Amino acid sequence: MYAVVKSKPAPGAEIRTVDRPEVGDHEVLVEVKAATICGTDVHIWDWNPWAQGRIRPPLIMGHEFCGEVVEVGRGVTRVRVGDLVSAETHIVDDTCYQCLTGKKHLCLHTEILGVDRDGVFAEYVVLPEENAWVNDPRLDPFLASLQEPLGNAVHSALPEDNIEDITGGYAAVLGCGPIGLMSIAVLKKLGASKVIATEIKPLRLEFAKAMGADLTLNPLKERDLVRRVLEYTDGRGVDVVLEMSGSPSALIQGLEMATNGGRVSLLGLPEASVGIDVSRLIVFKGLRIFGITGRRMFKTWYQVRELLRDRGFREEMKRLITHRLPMAEIDKGMALIKSGEAVKVGLYPTWE
Amino acid sequence: MYAVVKSKPAPGAEIRTVDRPEVGDHEVLVEVKAATICGTDVHIWDWNPWAQGRIRPPLIMGHEFCGEVVEVGRGVTRVRVGDLVSAETHIVDDTCYQCLTGKKHLCLHTEILGVDRDGVFAEYVVLPEENAWVNDPRLDPFLASLQEPLGNAVHSALPEDNIEDITGGYAAVLGCGPIGLMSIAVLKKLGASKVIATEIKPLRLEFAKAMGADLTLNPLKERDLVRRVLEYTDGRGVDVVLEMSGSPSALIQGLEMATNGGRVSLLGLPEASVGIDVSRLIVFKGLRIFGITGRRMFKTWYQVRELLRDRGFREEMKRLITHRLPMAEIDKGMALIKSGEAVKVGLYPTWE
Amino acid sequence: MYAVVKSKPAPGAEIRTVDRPEVGDHEVLVEVKAATICGTDVHIWDWNPWAQGRIRPPLIMGHEFCGEVVEVGRGVTRVRVGDLVSAETHIVDDTCYQCLTGKKHLCLHTEILGVDRDGVFAEYVVLPEENAWVNDPRLDPFLASLQEPLGNAVHSALPEDNIEDITGGYAAVLGCGPIGLMSIAVLKKLGASKVIATEIKPLRLEFAKAMGADLTLNPLKERDLVRRVLEYTDGRGVDVVLEMSGSPSALIQGLEMATNGGRVSLLGLPEASVGIDVSRLIVFKGLRIFGITGRRMFKTWYQVRELLRDRGFREEMKRLITHRLPMAEIDKGMALIKSGEAVKVGLYPTWE
Amino acid sequence: MYAVVKSKPAPGAEIRTVDRPEVGDHEVLVEVKAATICGTDVHIWDWNPWAQGRIRPPLIMGHEFCGEVVEVGRGVTRVRVGDLVSAETHIVDDTCYQCLTGKKHLCLHTEILGVDRDGVFAEYVVLPEENAWVNDPRLDPFLASLQEPLGNAVHSALPEDNIEDITGGYAAVLGCGPIGLMSIAVLKKLGASKVIATEIKPLRLEFAKAMGADLTLNPLKERDLVRRVLEYTDGRGVDVVLEMSGSPSALIQGLEMATNGGRVSLLGLPEASVGIDVSRLIVFKGLRIFGITGRRMFKTWYQVRELLRDRGFREEMKRLITHRLPMAEIDKGMALIKSGEAVKVGLYPTWE
Repeated sequence: MYAVVKSKPAPGAEIRTVDRPEVGDHEVLVEVKAATICGTDVHIWDWNPWAQGRIRPPLIMGHEFCGEVVEVGRGVTRVRVGDLVSAETHIVDDTCYQCLTGKKHLCLHTEILGVDRDGVFAEYVVLPEENAWVNDPRLDPFLASLQEPLGNAVHSALPEDNIEDITGGYAAVLGCGPIGLMSIAVLKKLGASKVIATEIKPLRLEFAKAMGADLTLNPLKERDLVRRVLEYTDGRGVDVVLEMSGSPSALIQGLEMATNGGRVSLLGLPEASVGIDVSRLIVFKGLRIFGITGRRMFKTWYQVRELLRDRGFREEMKRLITHRLPMAEIDKGMALIKSGEAVKVGLYPTWE
Repeated sequence: MYAVVKSKPAPGAEIRTVDRPEVGDHEVLVEVKAATICGTDVHIWDWNPWAQGRIRPPLIMGHEFCGEVVEVGRGVTRVRVGDLVSAETHIVDDTCYQCLTGKKHLCLHTEILGVDRDGVFAEYVVLPEENAWVNDPRLDPFLASLQEPLGNAVHSALPEDNIEDITGGYAAVLGCGPIGLMSIAVLKKLGASKVIATEIKPLRLEFAKAMGADLTLNPLKERDLVRRVLEYTDGRGVDVVLEMSGSPSALIQGLEMATNGGRVSLLGLPEASVGIDVSRLIVFKGLRIFGITGRRMFKTWYQVRELLRDRGFREEMKRLITHRLPMAEIDKGMALIKSGEAVKVGLYPTWE
Repeated sequence: MYAVVKSKPAPGAEIRTVDRPEVGDHEVLVEVKAATICGTDVHIWDWNPWAQGRIRPPLIMGHEFCGEVVEVGRGVTRVRVGDLVSAETHIVDDTCYQCLTGKKHLCLHTEILGVDRDGVFAEYVVLPEENAWVNDPRLDPFLASLQEPLGNAVHSALPEDNIEDITGGYAAVLGCGPIGLMSIAVLKKLGASKVIATEIKPLRLEFAKAMGADLTLNPLKERDLVRRVLEYTDGRGVDVVLEMSGSPSALIQGLEMATNGGRVSLLGLPEASVGIDVSRLIVFKGLRIFGITGRRMFKTWYQVRELLRDRGFREEMKRLITHRLPMAEIDKGMALIKSGEAVKVGLYPTWE
Repeated sequence: MYAVVKSKPAPGAEIRTVDRPEVGDHEVLVEVKAATICGTDVHIWDWNPWAQGRIRPPLIMGHEFCGEVVEVGRGVTRVRVGDLVSAETHIVDDTCYQCLTGKKHLCLHTEILGVDRDGVFAEYVVLPEENAWVNDPRLDPFLASLQEPLGNAVHSALPEDNIEDITGGYAAVLGCGPIGLMSIAVLKKLGASKVIATEIKPLRLEFAKAMGADLTLNPLKERDLVRRVLEYTDGRGVDVVLEMSGSPSALIQGLEMATNGGRVSLLGLPEASVGIDVSRLIVFKGLRIFGITGRRMFKTWYQVRELLRDRGFREEMKRLITHRLPMAEIDKGMALIKSGEAVKVGLYPTWE
């Protein structure tokens, strides 16, 4: 079968043929119908320092996708041939303390699809049955593929089961990449009264407005961004901050703009240590900070599924897929993302 | 001043003049601009068994309202003359265990406006400063008056601070009186994926649809209402049930339709004991049941205020005020409610 | 192998030889080292109405146990031959909404060991790997067997992950059967300031004191039990009530004695409907009621394991096993429990 | 009256006579019976940079205390002359968003006793009625004085109402000053299975053991402290970390030793920015971080009161007061604390 293979420890990847994978007892074989490119894929493509430390070529890239189940292992009970599935991309051990106490997304032995094992930019992919999320057959395959990052957005907004709701609250999204943009729509859907979005790229700021942001700010153009946010919230500050940029200065701004006792979800990944005035910004403010990784398995998936039943919400998500290309032109997709022309690039399985 | 006074232990009330009340150190005097009739007012008017046991005439009736502060006591610091206020109608002692641990709405010594002390169907009313919620001056006074029952609806949906959110969940509202109808709109605003409403009065079922209910059912016309709900939710049942009717059979249906581990808020007041198969309907299902009284002071008020910033939501609430009458015609308002012609009746301060 | 088999739809059971069970791919075969008799076993033995409706003979009885793994299926990865294990006795489907959202103990398709499939009063038992909880090899096998009901006690005290703690609070345990007695010790360990226990059997009241109850009351001897509790709590009432008796009057007393906004866990199983004054006892009091079934999988097991690391706590638990008998004399054990002479009866694998 | 007055912007303080304060309408006048010295008092005494920026002389020092009410303002309703009271030392505005939504301890306009207004190292002190916590008259006044820092310890362990309990969990206390030492006893009382304490001063490490720490470690003597903790917890790490030292390296160790998904309370105040590898230590680990300031008003006070009903716990707390001196010798108390000879110094009202 065809696949996008990171075959060497160097930038780029090649499209070549490889053996179709075998299905284990508790696995399913899926024919890929649609995929989308994630920022992580770009890092692997570019062979950045993180990728150099983590990726072991050869590896089939990609993890966001939707496909049709064409074969199931003999121990499979829930998923059936013909099901349209997407992947929870964290493959967990199901036996550690975290897995056994409702925190599978924080399993100590997580393997990630397309990072630690062969991914979905291929004609076929094998998944553990547990990781195959069965979609409504009427769901657009590209939307189905978006569920994985949309799950990150939902998880950031609702990091644990019993957390104060956002209804009528003030929220901020710092960094409007695809997950940040999705978060804006999610926060509005959750009843946030005011959503503030910050971003330095003009195209993304435009999208932030389209997703429903009530106030959009470009940190490069604001003399005092935090003051603007405080004024906009009548001096109270923000109840819920979602840091999606990985920028140290955005993280600090997030802590500054949070109201006393507010909460801050950190999904963005700073590349180096961040100097934080812990006393003033965390202790005295009584802030709550949540590290966000993956999606809650599978609470978040149910939430995502239901959010997508709303037609208006589906339209907003669809709008984020600015380009759709054949798998064979994945290099063009990478270029579009890096140039800032694309928000989200979809790939369909045309290989020649 | 004029007031609607329950002067005798008998049905009805009279409009007469009484002394304008004096303002204590920590109280404010408010000139009434708009009020709305609550079901409790109807019970007092009708002198039903509950009223006979609780009310001590003479008493000025009413508690839902909006008015302008015209005088403040010498110890008042937050509220100012000219402020447009509504009332948190539970006057609490601020010193008991409940009050000191964040549960003022469950104070053991609560006095209720228009029930235990003189109310708002009058030209002026005196409130403790703590109970005066300052409104946005641009808010329609009748909408401002609705905040109190709307708070009941929000409190029912979100009975405590850290509770699992409703986003993407399935919910049911049993009983579509004014608070039930408000709850439907609140649940949709909170992101509920499917809201089911049950009600026996046709006009209210129509309103339920207008508020956004996805499925409306008349228990009198359904052969197996619970089965209908289970089918509509793909066999899973409902995550969040709000019992708003006080009907024993609705309460049981609510427990039946809840999914294992779901939650049920009880706001409706059955008049007699309800026989409950505790083992099957609560223990084995692992249900969580919440008694709902009042509004969280003042978390709920902030949530209500912010919900009302949304224009669409304001329109939905306004639609519930089907009639507006002068105070002098309160008897007509009572009749309209009892006949089922009115959902919510507004009263404005015209006395002659 | 020998086993205690419910072979006919009638009271009693017989000890006879049956085939040793086969191990499936994801199962483990365990040689039973110690078991304990649960109230459910007594119901099955006595063939009470519940048993008549649920049990399908022939069935090997029993579910509380500890044993050594002697064989593992080929798909088993976590459990090893030689491990000393106890059983989470709820075998769940791992695929339903409840299982996939952190509520496995409320799975819609639960099978219970020794109820719906062959149990542990036998020389060997087969368990799904998921249900085999690996014990510290130094743990006394009878204590290990007690973990299952102890888990019920912990789950009742802490029904969900994020719930207000009991430290410094007032608690009541209604009904001092084995799980009730365990609950007393658990509540004290959780820092409850005052634990009140009610029970009609004198022996159990003695045990309640030994477990640490600060006040023990016999409902048959109290003229006004609720008033006694209110006085003992300075008029405030109880923060956390655990209803462990299944008695309708105890359940009502529990609702009465709870402080406004308190919580009530229901584990006891009333045999018929209970008439509840919902308005006065649930709605106006703002109570929270939790149905309790099983144990949280596997959060509760971790809590139980750690509680048992405390020597004093282990001693308290051990004291509850008032009798130890060979399996061959299970009929004597049943009689001891029914006569009220025994609290908890242990069984060891001597069959002749 | 006599008082310890910070009269000049310089190290030290003087004992001198000042006017006895007047009681406002909602205030109480308290005759001081016992007080204790807090680390904050040492900072003010030493006139450190924080004190230079915050304190406006002249100021009567001190905030931890117990005294007898000798006069009440005319608006006082709950507190009575003769009551033995301690002070919640945060005087809040009762009108801001935080105060009105259950987060008074995070009020934006907090004034602190002995920091922003005259304190308790005096013959008399005036308190707002709200801040006067009425003690059991039998409680030792020095223990009553300790309730304020003990409240910090409880608040650190239980930062919000609905948070996963500590029962059976693993905990670490980093820094064993008085609040750290109290925290150890609190964590054991909450049922923590293993409590690890770290501290560099030998005397405090001894006290840590006496408070119940299961493992005590001196960071200066450990080659790899985090590895020691991981080994001690079977590789799992710590569920609940309380950072009480203000040391940047301890804070980082706390993040390192926390298990994935664990929680970290920050009470210690680093003097400068701390460089944190946010991606690795917070995001990927899915940690939850809580800034801790003050005590929950007044949930924490109820918890503290009840903890102190336990005789063993009272003994542990008493042991921390290593020295008792007359107010006139406060300078000796300061010296004892700074030399590391004292844990907690009590002061009694002997002035000459």
